[in-house]
Amino acid sequence: MLDVTPVLDRLDRSLDDSLERLFGLLAIPSISTDPAYASECRKAAEWLVKDLRSIGFEASVRETQGHPMVVAHHDGEGPHVLFYGHYDVQPVDPLNLWDTDPFQPAVKEVEPGRKAITARGASDDKGQLMTFVEACRAYKAVHGKLPCRVTILFEGEEESGSPSLKPFMEANADELKADFALVCDTTMWDRETPAICVGLRGLVGEEVTVRAADRDLHSGFFGGLAANPIRILSRALADLHDENGRVTIPGFYDGVEETPEAILQSWNALGCDAEALLQPIGLSQPAGEKDRTALELIWARPTAEFNGVSGGYTGEGFKTVIPAEAHAKISFRLVHRQDPAKIREAFRAFVRARIPADCSVEFHPHGGSPAIQLSYDSPLVRRAQAALTDEWQRDAVAVAMGGSIPIVGDFQNLLGMDSLLVGFGLADDRIHSPNEKYELSSFHRGQRSWARILSALANGKDE
Amino acid sequence: MLDVTPVLDRLDRSLDDSLERLFGLLAIPSISTDPAYASECRKAAEWLVKDLRSIGFEASVRETQGHPMVVAHHDGEGPHVLFYGHYDVQPVDPLNLWDTDPFQPAVKEVEPGRKAITARGASDDKGQLMTFVEACRAYKAVHGKLPCRVTILFEGEEESGSPSLKPFMEANADELKADFALVCDTTMWDRETPAICVGLRGLVGEEVTVRAADRDLHSGFFGGLAANPIRILSRALADLHDENGRVTIPGFYDGVEETPEAILQSWNALGCDAEALLQPIGLSQPAGEKDRTALELIWARPTAEFNGVSGGYTGEGFKTVIPAEAHAKISFRLVHRQDPAKIREAFRAFVRARIPADCSVEFHPHGGSPAIQLSYDSPLVRRAQAALTDEWQRDAVAVAMGGSIPIVGDFQNLLGMDSLLVGFGLADDRIHSPNEKYELSSFHRGQRSWARILSALANGKDE
Repeated sequence: MLDVTPVLDRLDRSLDDSLERLFGLLAIPSISTDPAYASECRKAAEWLVKDLRSIGFEASVRETQGHPMVVAHHDGEGPHVLFYGHYDVQPVDPLNLWDTDPFQPAVKEVEPGRKAITARGASDDKGQLMTFVEACRAYKAVHGKLPCRVTILFEGEEESGSPSLKPFMEANADELKADFALVCDTTMWDRETPAICVGLRGLVGEEVTVRAADRDLHSGFFGGLAANPIRILSRALADLHDENGRVTIPGFYDGVEETPEAILQSWNALGCDAEALLQPIGLSQPAGEKDRTALELIWARPTAEFNGVSGGYTGEGFKTVIPAEAHAKISFRLVHRQDPAKIREAFRAFVRARIPADCSVEFHPHGGSPAIQLSYDSPLVRRAQAALTDEWQRDAVAVAMGGSIPIVGDFQNLLGMDSLLVGFGLADDRIHSPNEKYELSSFHRGQRSWARILSALANGKDE
Repeated sequence: MLDVTPVLDRLDRSLDDSLERLFGLLAIPSISTDPAYASECRKAAEWLVKDLRSIGFEASVRETQGHPMVVAHHDGEGPHVLFYGHYDVQPVDPLNLWDTDPFQPAVKEVEPGRKAITARGASDDKGQLMTFVEACRAYKAVHGKLPCRVTILFEGEEESGSPSLKPFMEANADELKADFALVCDTTMWDRETPAICVGLRGLVGEEVTVRAADRDLHSGFFGGLAANPIRILSRALADLHDENGRVTIPGFYDGVEETPEAILQSWNALGCDAEALLQPIGLSQPAGEKDRTALELIWARPTAEFNGVSGGYTGEGFKTVIPAEAHAKISFRLVHRQDPAKIREAFRAFVRARIPADCSVEFHPHGGSPAIQLSYDSPLVRRAQAALTDEWQRDAVAVAMGGSIPIVGDFQNLLGMDSLLVGFGLADDRIHSPNEKYELSSFHRGQRSWARILSALANGKDE
């Protein structure tokens, strides 16, 4: 058992050195979407390999069809963890809105007593991934070894859709498989409150085309006689929710669990109610299922949302047409054990039952991924939560996320691993925008947090 | 009382002469939408004035902001009728699809024993308006006078939206006001069956915009919490019809009358059922109110139709957006005494009642005209019907039309006149398309029909 206290001391003393290293990485313009920066992406990968080797990792640049991966291994006594991050960054346009060069990193005072690192990629994701690397470095410096067996996977295509990730994981499954994954690409709840993401909603997308007559019709002649596909589609869409906001598709809620009371209470304690979430976007009334809190609605309940609808004449003025067809794009967010394939089929049957015999409907699938859900009281979550609480002196909150993070599904499906999502970004870090920043406290206490989490995971104490 | 028999004989004998006159008018390319043809429009107006003067009308070209009107007067013993037609024609593109020059009229055999006049404007509307002029000419030749007092109004902008018509009617109301109007711009029921149009549905158009959040939202983060304007709009649209196809807006059916049983029977006798109307457009099931015949649905029942709908992402692929707004274009066809203003307000109240408190809705009006409905047993209709039945030896059918003809509303509103719509075009005349034609029998028996109608109106016998 490796004592974490001297490791934390070491991290405090070496902050300036760790900043200098991060600046070296941030100075490389590794923009993955722009082919002109391909060699810069490779340079970032090589930089990381060199740095990881310097602290004893067996590290290498690994080729893909696109930008290379970095894979590194280090032995250790405790459980085997796979740490994931990405070294590529977003483009920097519009450049004129940056206060300083996006690839000349600096530390600035953002308000009295608060400093931040400014550069493209400071928060997303170079600053974040280096918190973990620095924690490993400190362990090596103090104890000469790591408390866990660690595999590292850094990709260089996260900002351009990760086309190489899945094939790479499939081709190297044995090498990458660990007990669980650690993903550092998310945010804290707020500046003082650490968070662990334990749930990600799944997604089923469907594109629906309802067809009636074989041509557009004049509504003067045919109105009241011929089927109107907008009417048929509107009826089907309207029928999808009941008056309490519940989705009415038979079997839709199969596999949905009620959120434990203790978790609901911890969410309520965050003080983030519907008003707090809706007021900034000009709304005030929760539109989902009745008698659920706002955070429960977006974190722990499934939904049916209409993302697009079109049909007939939509330009300026008016045309009295009965269109031949109408379209809708609909997506379902899934939770817990809802089955994407079953939901898709049940939805299609629901719509088909509302199509008159002389009309037709066509479906096109988009996406289809189940929800990711860690048990709130899994040892993994409890240990990480305790470590974060120790570091930040605030209860680390187990949150969920409304959207999907594909990598987490891939870890689950291809490598059979749960993922622990812990990050130290803040909502106002301006990732993807000019003047991206990463708070100095995120960088420093992020390092300390990973040192504590690795210790907690290695020591195996559940409380 | 002027005997009609010698007038009919005269029309039979003078058919070749009347054709020659019509060819003279058809040869003038009076395309109203193209400014390059403005002088040709004037030429057509002058041609008509000259021709009407030659048979004793006091006729003149009357200036407007656009193409001129032709107004002509002739005294007579009987009731005062205003005859309306238009001398302008549609453009001829694509010219290469015409078998002959559109302004070199010809008579061709369309099938053994059936001949037709081919030219742009042959059916719409030069051939039709000349049927009336030739009937007047024959009366003058045989009797030296007309059986009715006749005012003629020919416009030259019907194919370009009639911008000058309403101001001209307002400025010359005293001069144009008659006992009723005769409009010759419609079709027969079929080649053998004459028709009188006694009803035209009115129209109320509404454009609806539902607004929710003040920006587009990510459905992963806000799905299930924030209002979705497509969902709100779909619900409002779906609620507009009940399960029997009736419109559910309170008061919508105020002023709607049941069609007399005898009229329904005469429509049934036409043998034009839902299958006959829907099969050509690829449908088979009437989609309107239950337990109504197809012709009743399109001629005598009001409707709510959805002409366009849009919102959110409608391009290729998928975006998991909750849009800020959604739009629909909706039109109501009105019958009998339904009040357009009341329908519009009732619709808006209906939609507003379905908008959550934190969302908003905006309406834009398009059009707003009441239905036109002659009483099926008005003396005007009965006399014209009897005259047509005499001529064609088939019961003339009193039909209605699903769409609007604005001039008829203007006659009613501005001049307080009912209109009798009688025409001899056929559904396959290809008006507005290449190879427009007007059957020789339409031209010949149309002249005879007007001779009989004028006689019937003058003689005042109701049966």
